[in-house]
Amino acid sequence: MASADSTPVPSRSQARTRFAATVGGLLAFAVAPAAFAAEGMWTLDNLPKAQLQSQYQFSPDQAWVDHAMQSSVRLAGGCSGSFVSPDGLVLTNAHCVVGCVQGLSSPQRDLQNDGFVADARGEELQCPAEELNVLREITDVSTRLASAADGKQGQAYVDARNAEKSRIESECVGDDEAKTRCDVVELYNGGQQHLYRYHRYSDVRLVFTPEYSVGFFGGDPDNFNFPRYNLDAALLRAYEYGKPANVEHHFTLNPQGAEPGELVMVTGHPGRTQRQLTVAQLETVRDVSLINNLLWLAERRAMLGQYGRSDDEATRQAQSDLTFTDNSYKVFRGQLQALLDPQVFAGKRAEEARLRDGVDAAPWNEVEAAQVVARQLAVPYMLLEQGRGFDSRLFGIARTLVRGGTERAKANDARLPEFQDAGQGRLRQTLLSKAPVYPEFEIAKLTWSLTKFRELLGTDDPLVKSVLGTQSPAQVAKALVEGSKLADVAERERLWSGGAAAIEASDDPFIRLARAVDAPARALRQRQESEVASIESRAATQIAKVRFEKLGTTVYPDATFTLRLSYGDVAGWEENGKAIEPFTTMGGVFARNTGAEPYALPKRWLDAEGRIAQDTRFNFVSTNDIIGGNSGSPVINRDAQVIGLAFDGNIHSLGGSFWYDPKLNRTVSVHSAAIIESLKSVYGADALVGELLQN
Amino acid sequence: MASADSTPVPSRSQARTRFAATVGGLLAFAVAPAAFAAEGMWTLDNLPKAQLQSQYQFSPDQAWVDHAMQSSVRLAGGCSGSFVSPDGLVLTNAHCVVGCVQGLSSPQRDLQNDGFVADARGEELQCPAEELNVLREITDVSTRLASAADGKQGQAYVDARNAEKSRIESECVGDDEAKTRCDVVELYNGGQQHLYRYHRYSDVRLVFTPEYSVGFFGGDPDNFNFPRYNLDAALLRAYEYGKPANVEHHFTLNPQGAEPGELVMVTGHPGRTQRQLTVAQLETVRDVSLINNLLWLAERRAMLGQYGRSDDEATRQAQSDLTFTDNSYKVFRGQLQALLDPQVFAGKRAEEARLRDGVDAAPWNEVEAAQVVARQLAVPYMLLEQGRGFDSRLFGIARTLVRGGTERAKANDARLPEFQDAGQGRLRQTLLSKAPVYPEFEIAKLTWSLTKFRELLGTDDPLVKSVLGTQSPAQVAKALVEGSKLADVAERERLWSGGAAAIEASDDPFIRLARAVDAPARALRQRQESEVASIESRAATQIAKVRFEKLGTTVYPDATFTLRLSYGDVAGWEENGKAIEPFTTMGGVFARNTGAEPYALPKRWLDAEGRIAQDTRFNFVSTNDIIGGNSGSPVINRDAQVIGLAFDGNIHSLGGSFWYDPKLNRTVSVHSAAIIESLKSVYGADALVGELLQN
Repeated sequence: MASADSTPVPSRSQARTRFAATVGGLLAFAVAPAAFAAEGMWTLDNLPKAQLQSQYQFSPDQAWVDHAMQSSVRLAGGCSGSFVSPDGLVLTNAHCVVGCVQGLSSPQRDLQNDGFVADARGEELQCPAEELNVLREITDVSTRLASAADGKQGQAYVDARNAEKSRIESECVGDDEAKTRCDVVELYNGGQQHLYRYHRYSDVRLVFTPEYSVGFFGGDPDNFNFPRYNLDAALLRAYEYGKPANVEHHFTLNPQGAEPGELVMVTGHPGRTQRQLTVAQLETVRDVSLINNLLWLAERRAMLGQYGRSDDEATRQAQSDLTFTDNSYKVFRGQLQALLDPQVFAGKRAEEARLRDGVDAAPWNEVEAAQVVARQLAVPYMLLEQGRGFDSRLFGIARTLVRGGTERAKANDARLPEFQDAGQGRLRQTLLSKAPVYPEFEIAKLTWSLTKFRELLGTDDPLVKSVLGTQSPAQVAKALVEGSKLADVAERERLWSGGAAAIEASDDPFIRLARAVDAPARALRQRQESEVASIESRAATQIAKVRFEKLGTTVYPDATFTLRLSYGDVAGWEENGKAIEPFTTMGGVFARNTGAEPYALPKRWLDAEGRIAQDTRFNFVSTNDIIGGNSGSPVINRDAQVIGLAFDGNIHSLGGSFWYDPKLNRTVSVHSAAIIESLKSVYGADALVGELLQN
Repeated sequence: MASADSTPVPSRSQARTRFAATVGGLLAFAVAPAAFAAEGMWTLDNLPKAQLQSQYQFSPDQAWVDHAMQSSVRLAGGCSGSFVSPDGLVLTNAHCVVGCVQGLSSPQRDLQNDGFVADARGEELQCPAEELNVLREITDVSTRLASAADGKQGQAYVDARNAEKSRIESECVGDDEAKTRCDVVELYNGGQQHLYRYHRYSDVRLVFTPEYSVGFFGGDPDNFNFPRYNLDAALLRAYEYGKPANVEHHFTLNPQGAEPGELVMVTGHPGRTQRQLTVAQLETVRDVSLINNLLWLAERRAMLGQYGRSDDEATRQAQSDLTFTDNSYKVFRGQLQALLDPQVFAGKRAEEARLRDGVDAAPWNEVEAAQVVARQLAVPYMLLEQGRGFDSRLFGIARTLVRGGTERAKANDARLPEFQDAGQGRLRQTLLSKAPVYPEFEIAKLTWSLTKFRELLGTDDPLVKSVLGTQSPAQVAKALVEGSKLADVAERERLWSGGAAAIEASDDPFIRLARAVDAPARALRQRQESEVASIESRAATQIAKVRFEKLGTTVYPDATFTLRLSYGDVAGWEENGKAIEPFTTMGGVFARNTGAEPYALPKRWLDAEGRIAQDTRFNFVSTNDIIGGNSGSPVINRDAQVIGLAFDGNIHSLGGSFWYDPKLNRTVSVHSAAIIESLKSVYGADALVGELLQN
């Protein structure tokens, strides 16, 4: 699947941290657009009009662009979607609603594995913590930010920009926090800053999700592969004032679906690309970030897998964590493989040499020098600031409460960005989610991660000593989980409302842990920002200028989990001399069914086999340039009709973090015909089919 | 710990395969000896006499060398040891006897965690499968092998050399298979071939092993670290004709132990170094072998860890596999870190450039070209020929039976090396070991590894399809383990004795699996030998010639799990500007004891605290150049007295695979005084103390 390429993105702030901080900033550069057909993740205010016209004779007017923009939806947790009816119906991937579905499930009611169809609107189920964003407006605020940080360096530079961003976002949100979200987005990493204003929906309900075994048919082995047979489709509905939202713009679903030779476009939210990093940054990614992450994820997936094998309930508890971990592992493995290709790295070196030719080398040298610190900080930052040393939902909750207590007492623009007013709606919603906490599962993850914490920092590290004391990781984990009241939503509410004083007074063991970790974690974050990120960001601004001067402005910025359009064709590719056809059919899934997971169709599908038109197109590949975060994006034609639903890339798409390969990189989508056929013939969801086809 | 740096080496043949095949052959080259004091793993027929004389005024005569050679012992499973009494008493590491101890344990009798002391000789326990080798003679057979393969290439070259090796070894063993072992050893990887004739002891009994928690105090977190507090010492005894072996040569134990400034030597069996690989081979190690291995081991350790957390009996079952996996992981992680240091790689490039200067580049180019195939084969070879796709003891047994049936029907010199007559004693002993098989544990490992097998080869791979059919890895694993009779030693005996016909007639599911995997695994092995190993080996011979010409012959060969001597000093080192002292004391272990694993001293130690002289030296570091396989080696002084027991290296020693760093690389040993003090004051083993000190 092609959801966010790290672990799932639980909040806006963490998304920012993860996307920006792990491997340094993103630089603004793209090869001239003509070089690779279909390359590019274009912002909607700078579409590649010349290419669309010359290659496809398509000239979208402003009304088309506005309609596409406002019909496209972002799932704040790390996915994309689109409105497909005037009543707020949202089409996205099944794997994008896993958090909601898992939160609504229990040992007695397993929506994840059994699937769910609301027979009537009254039966639609409210997700414990889901937020949808619809982009309304883009404003250039580059000048304002440049003035605010003018002449500043290091931490002062970081602080000044953060404060100004905060002011801009607060002004934009105004007093409409419940329904408005505003983000200052760093495009061309420092080349431009744009303010994105969204309409925000926080009452989101589950309408339809298929059984896990057909939504993710083929599981991890088939993930990022093709041919493919997944009904990775789900329906949500945005509500306002307790009723289905009345939306002005929505796409219509065309059940004929995509055809070869046709222009196909994807409007969605690619999470992060790293196509414009300097060579020094790419070396850090290759030799430090990816290897650290892969070794971490390899252990995590095996630990979760073995935990889940003890019984069915354990399997259910671990399922979504395992799926995301497997997915991230595969993404990073593909990225590492790409960066280990010596020819590719030689290409990056040559590209950089051309860019540096005849200009001041200082920005590149400063970035290179900052890598020494970046490498030193990598492991402790991952353990403490990213919280991986304390892998558990309860630690995440405690972290939010402890930091929230401190931060919310400060002036808005002096806070850590994730605690500023503009983002508090979602923060609170996530914190107070009613999704159940499973003590045994928390203990298992915590035991394992505390062991890594000790292993990576060393037994004699002062923080390790203070966290473990004279106990083993297993003993500490058990004491934390069994002694904590944070699984109780009311207790969280009490501590959140009580602010710093309530946190100070609490002797909850998780609160104590989060307090103990807070100072060293903040110190790492500050070093990362002042000694790495700010240097990379300033250098990137200078490099971006060089790039604009040498290559002009008809280029696209690296992905930033903001709305982009990519264009392309339905087309297979050649693998080891063999042609891969672009379509599969629904009949194919029955041929591939073995009855054993992850190739076991659910009963409803087996029963429906005779009713399904076997030659209905099921999945297809196209040349669109997408990346994790684009999951759930609509694939649309020039008439703004949904003809497919992007859910993955092929294995070659994983190198897409670093460059676009037109020969091999492919987007994998569910065909619109299969969505309709499944809802009709398998799920008997006639009302939904009617709603989707009413237009 | 410093045992063999891959998974433990279960048989001679597998040792050969693992050491030689995974990353290509070893080349003969060492920097001039004077460059780095203490560098070198010297064969006993080519000691660095000039250095020993000039640096230490020590000139060992032939009698000293013969005595050291015949007092040193190899544990065929992958460790070292030494005779320490005329009655065949062998001193080695506790971690080297884990296989024996685990084989003697059961849910009712946990020798691993409780330790064991034989109060009298009659109570010494026979290890299920242990073999000791004592080197008697070294003969140069280079000319004979060169003639045999003269003018041949590819598979013909491999076959001719293998056949000649087999003849040489058979002639050497004669009809004394039970007590003689002969190995043709590739020194300077192709530069020289020497025949090593060993006296073989196959009746080996456990005399003493401490509790796991003190033998491996500090567990994985402290492994490869220092200061250290491990009683990683055990005693075995060689038996012949049912009685303690009467050995002509043995070291004596000097309880005063090692002092700073004193010449300290290690005689042991370093498993493998890769100091003479070409740059192209090192790139394969860095970018393919190490990453593949690390990701595999990361998952395996987490899977074993989680399995072991379910209850105490599961912990016990998984313990030795987990320890070895953690150890290998740490070794490979250190190696990767070393190879990712750009300065180090630049050094290797410069060294190679100097060697290639003015000579024919063909050998290097041929090695480089062979890397393309080496990289292609790496993953399938690991899964099928190394058998990692079917991680379980029962698969190993089935593989030996199936291949044994086929191979033993052939003429001796036409067989795979591991099935030739010279090695059958140990092969049979391992196969028929009475060590218990744990079905649940077998199922867990097999389920996990079958999942990797499918993941890495792909669901549509024909062999994956034939192994899994329509079942899941968990279903297949359960059916295999529950349907097999191979846990029964009598059934193995029947199939081994029955040969090919019995195997053919068997419908045991593991036998069927091993049969199905055999042809594709052999095909990979053949490609690996003819397209990689033989090319590397021929090129290495040519490169070795260049090296001898340019640098003379006073160099040492890369390690080959054969007897070597290394010399050095007791000395600490500097870490981040802080001096690390070379000794710890027994009092220190009580200070570090927390009571929680892996820092929990056993009851016997806590009870004995008042009786132990707290300032007794416990562990120490020295500059000796050792590597995995050296575990259990005696540390001796110029009087051939045992003053320590090598069990590990510090974290910097892990780069020792690729070069020796005199500033940082250190050997970690148990001090002889601590061995005596523990036996006396903790275990009350007065008879053993008497035997050790009688001389």
